[in-house]
Amino acid sequence: MAIEAANGSAVANGSASKQGPLNLDASKLKVIRTEAPRAMPSPENLKFGQTMTDHMLVATYDPINGWSAPEIKPYGPFALDPASSCFHYSTNLFEGMKAYIGPDGKPRLFRPELNMARMKKSADRIALPPFDTEELLKLIKRLVAMDAHWIPTLPGHSMYIRPTMIGTRPNLGVAASDHAMIYVICCPTGPYFRTGARQISLLAMGETVRAWPGGTGGYKLALNYAPTLKPQQVAEQQGYNQVLWLLGDRVTEAGAMNFFVVVKRDDDNWDVYTPPLDGTILPGITRDSCLALAGAHPSRTVLPHLPETLRLHPQERPVTMSDLAQWHAEGRLLEAFTVGTAVVVTGVGRIGYQGKNIELPIHEGGRGPLAQALYERIMDIQEGKVEWEGWSVPCA
Amino acid sequence: MAIEAANGSAVANGSASKQGPLNLDASKLKVIRTEAPRAMPSPENLKFGQTMTDHMLVATYDPINGWSAPEIKPYGPFALDPASSCFHYSTNLFEGMKAYIGPDGKPRLFRPELNMARMKKSADRIALPPFDTEELLKLIKRLVAMDAHWIPTLPGHSMYIRPTMIGTRPNLGVAASDHAMIYVICCPTGPYFRTGARQISLLAMGETVRAWPGGTGGYKLALNYAPTLKPQQVAEQQGYNQVLWLLGDRVTEAGAMNFFVVVKRDDDNWDVYTPPLDGTILPGITRDSCLALAGAHPSRTVLPHLPETLRLHPQERPVTMSDLAQWHAEGRLLEAFTVGTAVVVTGVGRIGYQGKNIELPIHEGGRGPLAQALYERIMDIQEGKVEWEGWSVPCA
Repeated sequence: MAIEAANGSAVANGSASKQGPLNLDASKLKVIRTEAPRAMPSPENLKFGQTMTDHMLVATYDPINGWSAPEIKPYGPFALDPASSCFHYSTNLFEGMKAYIGPDGKPRLFRPELNMARMKKSADRIALPPFDTEELLKLIKRLVAMDAHWIPTLPGHSMYIRPTMIGTRPNLGVAASDHAMIYVICCPTGPYFRTGARQISLLAMGETVRAWPGGTGGYKLALNYAPTLKPQQVAEQQGYNQVLWLLGDRVTEAGAMNFFVVVKRDDDNWDVYTPPLDGTILPGITRDSCLALAGAHPSRTVLPHLPETLRLHPQERPVTMSDLAQWHAEGRLLEAFTVGTAVVVTGVGRIGYQGKNIELPIHEGGRGPLAQALYERIMDIQEGKVEWEGWSVPCA
Repeated sequence: MAIEAANGSAVANGSASKQGPLNLDASKLKVIRTEAPRAMPSPENLKFGQTMTDHMLVATYDPINGWSAPEIKPYGPFALDPASSCFHYSTNLFEGMKAYIGPDGKPRLFRPELNMARMKKSADRIALPPFDTEELLKLIKRLVAMDAHWIPTLPGHSMYIRPTMIGTRPNLGVAASDHAMIYVICCPTGPYFRTGARQISLLAMGETVRAWPGGTGGYKLALNYAPTLKPQQVAEQQGYNQVLWLLGDRVTEAGAMNFFVVVKRDDDNWDVYTPPLDGTILPGITRDSCLALAGAHPSRTVLPHLPETLRLHPQERPVTMSDLAQWHAEGRLLEAFTVGTAVVVTGVGRIGYQGKNIELPIHEGGRGPLAQALYERIMDIQEGKVEWEGWSVPCA
């Protein structure tokens, strides 16, 4: 009876072709504006992830009614049953996106359809209900447009967007969560690492393994992060900024970022390596963008400050600690850098492993030539200053 | 300043010997009884994990004040910030315990100090704040005593207890959660599997890997479960009850349970194998109890229905799919069974692997001789009918 009622409702709402629970539908959005808008802290004082904007987007799913009418409403706590699946079985996933103000004063997103596609895959991997990613993206654009005055316009600043999905089935039996909530929260943000112009240091760690074949390292799931927090503390205690994750001798990721190295063939040919998407590597959108842009130089575009005579050879291939040591010994290890939505592109200065350090060339400004070129170009595309293959998408 | 104030408060509360944040302290318990006690459903209709008792225990931690005064209060939702660590980085863990009514009418727990020790290790593994396990156990006993009328007295029924700890740091930066909540909820429960007297079937799966050396399979963390939900659906679609998890050719666990096999040397000597605690296996308390009881037969106790001439040889050793196939071909694979707090001991009737099935001897009642003996003895100890090494602990 309840399912029939939900169908009836769907028909009444114009989704006559759909049977069963309702789809996520941006046209049903309800907006409740805050009555107490907050002031944004001074951008210089922003720490990543600490200050949220005025509004959030919420939609809920249950197996009878399907997706609720989505709501944009004042940011605030929500109430959950203590037996909810998200607390006990980690049926939780998220995405990371960023909004920038373009030269036209309008907010822009960066390749958001890739976040949506990845989020859909994550949900399927942990058996959360499906949702229409195009509808979700419409809703995110609405939220960003509404809180666009929270986007700092200082260089290197932006608004970080956190689409999140959690299982809310209130039942301790170990089973797929047939209840869920999607919510999206936003925070104005400055540079992720406050190391100033220094390159970050990485401690390579093999005892604790972040991801393995047949595991979930290739999906953006909450569960990939908790096991990394303690090793991160160990790295910091030993004077390193982040962990370089290994699987055996192979590098997988760095902290919560993808990892790149630049190896010189000769002065005019640099190999650019990043580990392949074998299931242990997050398919990062910045990673993909770096590979694409490196491959476009110099034939389709000239990256900032790089000579036109330089040919870059981006390749997805395994990178081992032995490789790093050997390239370093041969004087061919030009750069290592880490990439991700939050950090964009960050240079690596030192890699510790088994009591020794690989010291990389130090560069003013914190990035080697390729890292700096990719950083500048990606920022220019994200901020709408340079058009590139439709990567930067206006919100309204 | 804030830390000094917290110290001052600690001194004023009589914890003069403690510096800094307050410890979890059972003597500070506040009890708020429900004004609307609910009726327990008929025990025959209980499904695992669906019906909660009237009350729950809650205590919160922040880095300035430490642990709050714990509260037992009416079961109900709690409010969390959408940026809480538990949603984004899976800083969540739990335990599973059971309470039974003893012959004296009083509720009893089973080896609860092992749950507390494991919970402490889990918290440390994902960098959650420490807590005093003895105090938590006192609080759990109070909660169980208060809701003891929810414990069904039917055979095979009990009250399942779910101590839970979640990270509540409201900040999207990837870092240890310095805010946390411990809560304990309870549900009256019947047998976990409603297969009647049938033995369960397992589908051995190697593509998806539950645990890995250097991973978190040896800790009871929420994050170990989400990746298993989709494979569980696949197993069910293929007509199996649960997944048998493999790492390469090696068996690790079955569903969310530990796995045992019984292999005949000769009529008077049975080997009892379970995979070793190499970091990929949950150190189950029922697992430990089964090993101990099997080792005690017949010298220290005679297990139900087993001949005194039978010698059991329990061993923690790797078990591979090749081993299972060979023992089966030789006619020596007497039993396979799965164990855990929720299921106690459940017989396995069939193991599917690579398109073939290993069919195990079928036993009336759903368990082979050793599984049945261990099940009866553990239940007798849990229900306080048989005293064994202080395993069964009265709540009050």
